[in-house]
Amino acid sequence: MRIAVLGGDGYCGWATALYLSQKGHTVQIIDNFIRRKWDSELGVQTLTPIRTLHERVSAWSKRTGKTIEVLVGDVTDYEFLASAIRGFEPDAVVHFAEQRSAPYSMIDRKHAALTQINNVMGTLNLLFALREFQPNCHLVKLGTMGEYGTPNIDIEEGYIEIEHNGRKDVLPYPKQPGSFYHLSKVHDSHNIMFCCKIWKLRATDLNQGVVYGTVTDETSLDEALINRFDYDEVFGTVLNRFVIEAAAGHPLTVYGKGGQTRGFLDIRDTVRCIEIACLNPANPGEFRVFNQFTEQFSVLDLALMVQTAGAKMGLSVDINHIPDPRVEAETHYYNARHSKLVDLGLQPHYLSDSLLDSLLTIAIEYRDRIDMSLFMPQVNWRSAKNERQLDSKSLSVTTAGQ
Amino acid sequence: MRIAVLGGDGYCGWATALYLSQKGHTVQIIDNFIRRKWDSELGVQTLTPIRTLHERVSAWSKRTGKTIEVLVGDVTDYEFLASAIRGFEPDAVVHFAEQRSAPYSMIDRKHAALTQINNVMGTLNLLFALREFQPNCHLVKLGTMGEYGTPNIDIEEGYIEIEHNGRKDVLPYPKQPGSFYHLSKVHDSHNIMFCCKIWKLRATDLNQGVVYGTVTDETSLDEALINRFDYDEVFGTVLNRFVIEAAAGHPLTVYGKGGQTRGFLDIRDTVRCIEIACLNPANPGEFRVFNQFTEQFSVLDLALMVQTAGAKMGLSVDINHIPDPRVEAETHYYNARHSKLVDLGLQPHYLSDSLLDSLLTIAIEYRDRIDMSLFMPQVNWRSAKNERQLDSKSLSVTTAGQ
Repeated sequence: MRIAVLGGDGYCGWATALYLSQKGHTVQIIDNFIRRKWDSELGVQTLTPIRTLHERVSAWSKRTGKTIEVLVGDVTDYEFLASAIRGFEPDAVVHFAEQRSAPYSMIDRKHAALTQINNVMGTLNLLFALREFQPNCHLVKLGTMGEYGTPNIDIEEGYIEIEHNGRKDVLPYPKQPGSFYHLSKVHDSHNIMFCCKIWKLRATDLNQGVVYGTVTDETSLDEALINRFDYDEVFGTVLNRFVIEAAAGHPLTVYGKGGQTRGFLDIRDTVRCIEIACLNPANPGEFRVFNQFTEQFSVLDLALMVQTAGAKMGLSVDINHIPDPRVEAETHYYNARHSKLVDLGLQPHYLSDSLLDSLLTIAIEYRDRIDMSLFMPQVNWRSAKNERQLDSKSLSVTTAGQ
Repeated sequence: MRIAVLGGDGYCGWATALYLSQKGHTVQIIDNFIRRKWDSELGVQTLTPIRTLHERVSAWSKRTGKTIEVLVGDVTDYEFLASAIRGFEPDAVVHFAEQRSAPYSMIDRKHAALTQINNVMGTLNLLFALREFQPNCHLVKLGTMGEYGTPNIDIEEGYIEIEHNGRKDVLPYPKQPGSFYHLSKVHDSHNIMFCCKIWKLRATDLNQGVVYGTVTDETSLDEALINRFDYDEVFGTVLNRFVIEAAAGHPLTVYGKGGQTRGFLDIRDTVRCIEIACLNPANPGEFRVFNQFTEQFSVLDLALMVQTAGAKMGLSVDINHIPDPRVEAETHYYNARHSKLVDLGLQPHYLSDSLLDSLLTIAIEYRDRIDMSLFMPQVNWRSAKNERQLDSKSLSVTTAGQ
């Protein structure tokens, strides 16, 4: 298939582009490098020393003989995006090109607006470009499990049958997103659902859980192919951050009670889920939603697992419960369905001791690149303005170490 | 109370500002006149010759001795809006300052983007300005009944209790908006709900039905206070448009079968609902939703009522069923709850023969200002680009006159 990967220089995007290329698809990466710019803005960097996109793609070509086309530009620029779609004529577009950090979106008004405009307008442009130039192309859009929030009933995959006053309908599952970022994904979902209805576009919304891991079969072929491994409080997802905190000898930063339960998946499953979605496209007019995760854990579950894995490697790992900078339930019911991708053939990599060992090993390998000042949360949901890096002591560390 | 009316130069905003001023509130209008600019863009104008905002406010002051402060600026300009909120210190902000036409939002990509950015960013700015400078102020936000779409179950007011797999929760009512405009209101609702949660703001979302009528007790005090009466296919709401078509001797333009059922209300009830919401504010942290309409009608019901009312005045009124330019169910179940405002004291003006007579009389009075080329729909939901006024024959009139 001809597959365009928007945001193909990012954490999930890069791994996905390589996997799809390895599988024999013709892959085009579209990226504007804004993810790297945000690192510079915040004064953070990936633990792993990633190469420039052109170096990466060139190394991939040398190792495998496979070519990945690169197009540099911004999806919020309609003329650019439309010309890209016209030129490449993709069978599927995998859309990762969004600002994907909840804390980043909560820094202040400008970051909230940037996140919502970037994400919503990028997707809107893509919908119009597909409608105008490639209406049969399948849109594979990255959503998030965070769109659902934490309702007190089971979470279904996108839709729920509701019986009410003696009548029934299947309706979009109610959304309770927990940050301006998560809200942007909810806005996207509504916009995409509508465009599928009026224009008969095909779309799959992949409500992805929290991704962990960094290595895939493809990225490990050559050091130049190494993927991002973010651990800072803004872009570091929770398990990755815990592993690096453990390697650095820093207490694990559990927000509040740590009973926040979410869906998680290994990045090796992210890339497979994307291919499964591409190979099994939605029908014309269909807006399909898959919950893309493999296991549920609470934040405290993960901290305890990292503590145990660390102990086996001789690391003494403390766990600190710090005040939750987010406004969220610290304990709650959580049970989310996630069978549609498994029904289509996904064989999950479950979180294992060996995966934790390998993550800890990588973290230790690059330990000299760790900046411990980036672990503590500096963005508080309750503030309208967070002066990041000027106010890092606003959340004091409690000493609830275990 | 000190009440800021954002968008106070528009159709509902103007009537509301006068009503609140008459009731003794201290009213400030904030407007950027973009609604008048859109008329110029589309080559349309209100049937009634409205005055400039400054003339209007001056006439109001002469007639009543009451002052309405006017501030000219754009709610998408945060510095302006924040300074307005800081300066006026409102107890309530009534937010009408949005692009409110579904067809306008469906013209093409630029109009879709303008609608969503203007509406979503304006509201986001307002939320941040209230959080920063007037956190106890009550946000009274105009939503739309169109956020709900036409589900096959009863529509509740904002939330619905769902029982699922043996558990229960009260969740936001699922949204199925039918245009980029309606989508923008859904995006707003999610953003506001979230800000109430994290910042303990107070907000009431008024999911308003289709408004009809033009005269209120206040606007009829002086010809200089006359309100808008839009009848064009972009900004003219359906009953107002039918009345003017009848007065012009043009067949009523019923889209499709006309079984599209919606909630409707008289503009005299709009203004009272707004005051009721202001006088009974939401609690801190509460995101409250009222369905603001008084009666349900199908489009064909309304056409037949206008036909009958016209006949009494000697007008021969035909009804044409033209292909529906929208993508929507032409017949469907519809039953929406609307008791919260009545519980707080609203006494509805139901649609009556005398109201239709008075609307027809106004339409006849200004008949020489009617441009009949503006009746037929020129914006088709199925097209990504509608060349308005260049392609007005794309929907041909069928001859299903009655």
